[in-house]
Amino acid sequence: MKVAVLGFGTVGVGVWDMLEKAPGLERGLVLVRAGKENEDFKVSSMEAICNDESIDAVAEVMGGVEPAFSYVSMALKAKKHVVTSNKALVAAKGVELNKLAIENGVSFLFSAACGGAVPFLHNLSIATLDDEIESLGGILNGTTNFMLDSMQSEGMDYAEALSIAQKLGYAEADPTADVSGMDALRKIMLACAVAYDKLPVDGFSREGIESITAADVNDFQAMGLTARLVTSGGEAGDSVYAYVEPVLFSAGAAECSVLKNFNMAKYFGKNSGSIVYIGQGAGRYPTASAVIRDLYCIGGVPMFTDKVHEVVADNSACVHGYYVRCEAKDAASFDFEESRVDGENVRGIVKPIAVTAMHEKAKAIRDNGGKIFFAAMEK
Amino acid sequence: MKVAVLGFGTVGVGVWDMLEKAPGLERGLVLVRAGKENEDFKVSSMEAICNDESIDAVAEVMGGVEPAFSYVSMALKAKKHVVTSNKALVAAKGVELNKLAIENGVSFLFSAACGGAVPFLHNLSIATLDDEIESLGGILNGTTNFMLDSMQSEGMDYAEALSIAQKLGYAEADPTADVSGMDALRKIMLACAVAYDKLPVDGFSREGIESITAADVNDFQAMGLTARLVTSGGEAGDSVYAYVEPVLFSAGAAECSVLKNFNMAKYFGKNSGSIVYIGQGAGRYPTASAVIRDLYCIGGVPMFTDKVHEVVADNSACVHGYYVRCEAKDAASFDFEESRVDGENVRGIVKPIAVTAMHEKAKAIRDNGGKIFFAAMEK
Repeated sequence: MKVAVLGFGTVGVGVWDMLEKAPGLERGLVLVRAGKENEDFKVSSMEAICNDESIDAVAEVMGGVEPAFSYVSMALKAKKHVVTSNKALVAAKGVELNKLAIENGVSFLFSAACGGAVPFLHNLSIATLDDEIESLGGILNGTTNFMLDSMQSEGMDYAEALSIAQKLGYAEADPTADVSGMDALRKIMLACAVAYDKLPVDGFSREGIESITAADVNDFQAMGLTARLVTSGGEAGDSVYAYVEPVLFSAGAAECSVLKNFNMAKYFGKNSGSIVYIGQGAGRYPTASAVIRDLYCIGGVPMFTDKVHEVVADNSACVHGYYVRCEAKDAASFDFEESRVDGENVRGIVKPIAVTAMHEKAKAIRDNGGKIFFAAMEK
Repeated sequence: MKVAVLGFGTVGVGVWDMLEKAPGLERGLVLVRAGKENEDFKVSSMEAICNDESIDAVAEVMGGVEPAFSYVSMALKAKKHVVTSNKALVAAKGVELNKLAIENGVSFLFSAACGGAVPFLHNLSIATLDDEIESLGGILNGTTNFMLDSMQSEGMDYAEALSIAQKLGYAEADPTADVSGMDALRKIMLACAVAYDKLPVDGFSREGIESITAADVNDFQAMGLTARLVTSGGEAGDSVYAYVEPVLFSAGAAECSVLKNFNMAKYFGKNSGSIVYIGQGAGRYPTASAVIRDLYCIGGVPMFTDKVHEVVADNSACVHGYYVRCEAKDAASFDFEESRVDGENVRGIVKPIAVTAMHEKAKAIRDNGGKIFFAAMEK
């Protein structure tokens, strides 16, 4: 199988490297920006790739919705299989692209878009054939896990943890997509669509790690708790629930052993029980190896079925207790089980409330100029 | 695809149940013992299954080498794909059966034989196509993990932990294969053959959990350590290393969070890094779901290649420090880093020595009527 690669950045170079040695796979062309065609395998015209009948599959690793969407659409219409690591693309246009793939009788796989080297979506798509997936999610963003681990294990403050993550290449110059929880949310969108044929496109609750301080860490660590940014999904009637928020785990929880930039993806199947995957969710070769894995699985179990459709997420039935730190003036917003004054702040555990209600309260406080950190208590 | 099931015990009934609902799969016949054909889908003649041209695949879940080997050989020669959960069969006859499968152009898959619902061999076989597997193994036996966890979390002694494991169906009436480490060893044999084309058939080092006492648990728990029965494998020149022994982990290690009858299988790939899988390695539906997974993967990536061959394992280059409890008269056998007298016993940490040397010393002591418990110290 001859493969063209769209994009020649970190992941693209990794895929190109690995294609050289992968038995049964062959290097085709690489799509680069106009003016960057400095080697004979590089082209800047997507038409050149679509018109090359020797090319069987396209690996899209450019990132972003456009021009990736146009290029992937062209490839599918030209009856090339498409494998992509681009979670933003699949989250925004997955249903449409899947339809094109089915119409043209080719595969559309995106294992690398969720978990990198961790073969989560690959196995989830197989599991959906013979199991009922009761819930799914986990620690799906390595950047924020690295930052939380650094703050908790090494006593760094937020700015320091972010700066080191950027130096190590784990965080981008603009870290918003990671620290806001958006990256993790896109991954649970894809996982829900694989598991339930429902791609949630709105109605989310999303809290990242931007509000956490060294004082928060000190406080919940004194209680024996460890924070992780956790993504949760599952079926909710005709829709799905899908949300991202920090969660506090007690010692001994498997999540506490997920260190540095590692991911932990999991699902609970009615037949198979709890299945957990831990590994590196990003980086050149971990991500490239996921792209190669999908290339080997072309023609096998599809990730999206012909039933996949967009829904609005419904988190109203999800309920947790929460650890909350807020300013004293805002404390009356919450029904605390226990709380105490800490300087200008109040800290405590709020009685179980709906995820949507908790996120709305935090938003109202922030809209009013207030500051708040919250994290769900592990059940 | 129409599937015949060989065996109608715990797993066989699970597979039969799941076949009814699995899209694209269809129930064929079930092979039972003569005299047990009490329903019209049950036959006691393997010829009846082989001669039924409507049957595409056979799921062998009888266990044991014979008659499973004869039946599976017949099925492969009749050009039926074979999926099996039978680790004893694949460990003893895997090379021969794989050759038959290749000659007859059918698939021979055995994901359920290692890790049950944990899709370890499935993903390992795909990973070998594009990655160099540097090491593999983990906690591959749920029975012993349940017993160790019960002894450590609930203060049970060995006999009590075994008795409860038997009552819950986690241990068989004769628990030897599990508690001796033989079951875990068979699984690492298969994993080595998938990863390296080398099926080790001799030269193993194998220590189970039969020697552990409540006093041992008390002692190493006071040092903050947790015991797990760990299986290790990797390439060793023209051969592989493959051994099973208890290992002591310090708090925070991911292994400590593997509780009850769960498995944790892992490999380290040069490209993908550390990939860990946690889930239930046994039980009706977890194991049946692995059989169904393999049925869906027929025609895809093979588990054994045409290069797989038998080797003698070589553990001579594997070196660990060890926790040792032995009788005072045997203490001179070891080069202790630190040790202390505990009644009639000596307990301490032995300086790093080869796995083979450690296992041989323990054997010599036992051959001489002595008693010893040992466990590797996590590196």
